[in-house]
Amino acid sequence: MAEPSSSKPAVPLLKDELDIVIPTIRNLDFLEMWRPFFEPYHLIIVQDGDPNRTIKVPDGFDYELYNRNDINRILGPKASCISFKDSACRCFGYMVSKKKYIYTIDDDCFVAKDPSGKDINALEQHIKNLLCPSTPFFFNTLYDPYRAGADFVRGYPFSLREGAPTAVSHGLWLNIPDYDAPTQLVKPLERNTRYVDAVLTIPKGTLFPMCGMNLAFDRQLIGPAMYFGLMGDGQPIGRYDDMWAGWCVKVVCDHLGLGVKTGLPYIWHSKASNPFVNLKKEYKGIFWQEEIIPFFQSATIPKECTSVQKCYIELSKQVKEKLGAVDPYFTKLADAMVTWIEAWDELNSTTSEEASSKSANGAAAATK
Amino acid sequence: MAEPSSSKPAVPLLKDELDIVIPTIRNLDFLEMWRPFFEPYHLIIVQDGDPNRTIKVPDGFDYELYNRNDINRILGPKASCISFKDSACRCFGYMVSKKKYIYTIDDDCFVAKDPSGKDINALEQHIKNLLCPSTPFFFNTLYDPYRAGADFVRGYPFSLREGAPTAVSHGLWLNIPDYDAPTQLVKPLERNTRYVDAVLTIPKGTLFPMCGMNLAFDRQLIGPAMYFGLMGDGQPIGRYDDMWAGWCVKVVCDHLGLGVKTGLPYIWHSKASNPFVNLKKEYKGIFWQEEIIPFFQSATIPKECTSVQKCYIELSKQVKEKLGAVDPYFTKLADAMVTWIEAWDELNSTTSEEASSKSANGAAAATK
Repeated sequence: MAEPSSSKPAVPLLKDELDIVIPTIRNLDFLEMWRPFFEPYHLIIVQDGDPNRTIKVPDGFDYELYNRNDINRILGPKASCISFKDSACRCFGYMVSKKKYIYTIDDDCFVAKDPSGKDINALEQHIKNLLCPSTPFFFNTLYDPYRAGADFVRGYPFSLREGAPTAVSHGLWLNIPDYDAPTQLVKPLERNTRYVDAVLTIPKGTLFPMCGMNLAFDRQLIGPAMYFGLMGDGQPIGRYDDMWAGWCVKVVCDHLGLGVKTGLPYIWHSKASNPFVNLKKEYKGIFWQEEIIPFFQSATIPKECTSVQKCYIELSKQVKEKLGAVDPYFTKLADAMVTWIEAWDELNSTTSEEASSKSANGAAAATK
Repeated sequence: MAEPSSSKPAVPLLKDELDIVIPTIRNLDFLEMWRPFFEPYHLIIVQDGDPNRTIKVPDGFDYELYNRNDINRILGPKASCISFKDSACRCFGYMVSKKKYIYTIDDDCFVAKDPSGKDINALEQHIKNLLCPSTPFFFNTLYDPYRAGADFVRGYPFSLREGAPTAVSHGLWLNIPDYDAPTQLVKPLERNTRYVDAVLTIPKGTLFPMCGMNLAFDRQLIGPAMYFGLMGDGQPIGRYDDMWAGWCVKVVCDHLGLGVKTGLPYIWHSKASNPFVNLKKEYKGIFWQEEIIPFFQSATIPKECTSVQKCYIELSKQVKEKLGAVDPYFTKLADAMVTWIEAWDELNSTTSEEASSKSANGAAAATK
């Protein structure tokens, strides 16, 4: 198998099977730096905040753009499940995409360099992660056994060496680490300078904090569970959109025998967000997560749930029943989880040809 | 906290609290290379094979040496639990040590270099791993959160940030990777050249293939579970000594809330063992592990087992009951597990002062 490299491949991998989803409130100048890697792909831009504002996209990129008016028009009353004034709105892009794979990246993330000084093609590494199996059932001490120069070590059961399909590839960040507000406040100057040259599978039964900054996934395998919840405007919480998705996704992946990887690729995270603003958004989450995480750690999904949708609806019931007591917010969130699945199925139930034409009609505001 | 460095510290860490255990059949010339790092520590050499052979130890090292005659004399009939003609005999060294920590290393392991070309003080890194908590209950995507320049990422529950005591530090190998015989045969030229600059906790509930080549542990926390089983002479299996210990140790650590780390430090593994010989030793293990691993994955230890010894005796019962049907070997192994604990308690039941003098008397063959 080919070793991941940071050079631009002759034919971009999965060119017609992957969409790049970017939530933003500003002009997308950051794309200039990504041009060599992103230009061959289609972008789905989800414009947050004021829909009357014009977002400038550098020339040459192939994109569709949705603002709040578009979301409301396409989803109607179901638009209530899509957050406003929070990057959680990005999951609308997952829903309207018709591709098999999604890569999502924040607009303050730049191209990082590997230790040899070469630009890292983050997307290429994510694609390699997704196309290669995961090993959720037993830990391999030499990390990704499918990588060139590595393999399964002595004592790894042969029956598990085919691995499991990979649903999620979680990439990391050099420079500004993804810290919560209290840690940001305590360590304002900390920068992540350590390049750890590894991709590993998060074992079955283990939860992890999934960050949405630099994340790829297989929409067909796990898309309907990639809901970023109710955050931001009118909600009591923010900055837990990706965490919520990560907890749900991991429980569903574990149930369905799918793999979740973390590690490479790194992006360069340019700017720390304001820790005081973050603290205000986060403080309820910091408190609630002490109950939410044990809930997800012990959540089990019945065997009958054989699709992501069924798993997710089941999870929504358990959220309502068990987390509803923590705060009324979770009852609202559980309802939104159901609405999300209804909206997902509405946009994704047709055959792929019909779906694309429907999507093209639906997204009348899309500019190219 | 201090960043692990590969330089020799002014005062060697844990100088009087750690023994280095080395199983061998040959002269210990390999120690020359380790002199700057190992010389301050006490060595316990377990001589395998012909007890009449003289093993040469380079001048200046402080050591005691046990051959088969010593083991038989010290343990009497209980010596049956210590393997012969197999590096599994090293666990006798764990038993006679009176120190809190053990580092064990194979005599074909040399000092590796980090990417900057500096010699890696493997022992120092192991000690840092052991003295720092583990994080078995939730995954931290930036790896060891206690390392300088890293921390817990956003979404990591604050209630879990104290971590758990670390019982085991599993180090890795550059050059010759620890592959099983089939993989050795298929990839005779594969070398591990990837230096992954990370230490991570193996999550609770996840098993891993523990290699005994470069391994440190806290004897007080987990020692009695570090039994390397019945291998080699007179046994149907070899090269599964460390794997067996790893499965047992992980289940006991998970039950007792202790952590197991893997990753740094690397040693330089100089020589691949003969894959044809290995295949003969391994083939039953390759077959059996398909049943052993599910057994350990589902093993649960009752709450009443609050000491390592109690956990281990309980495990031995389950091994007899559930693996006895796989092969009569496991009935014998289960009995040996009990004998091991009896022998351990006999040598370790006295106070530390008494114990050291008893040990000194017992180890009459020890040379210095």
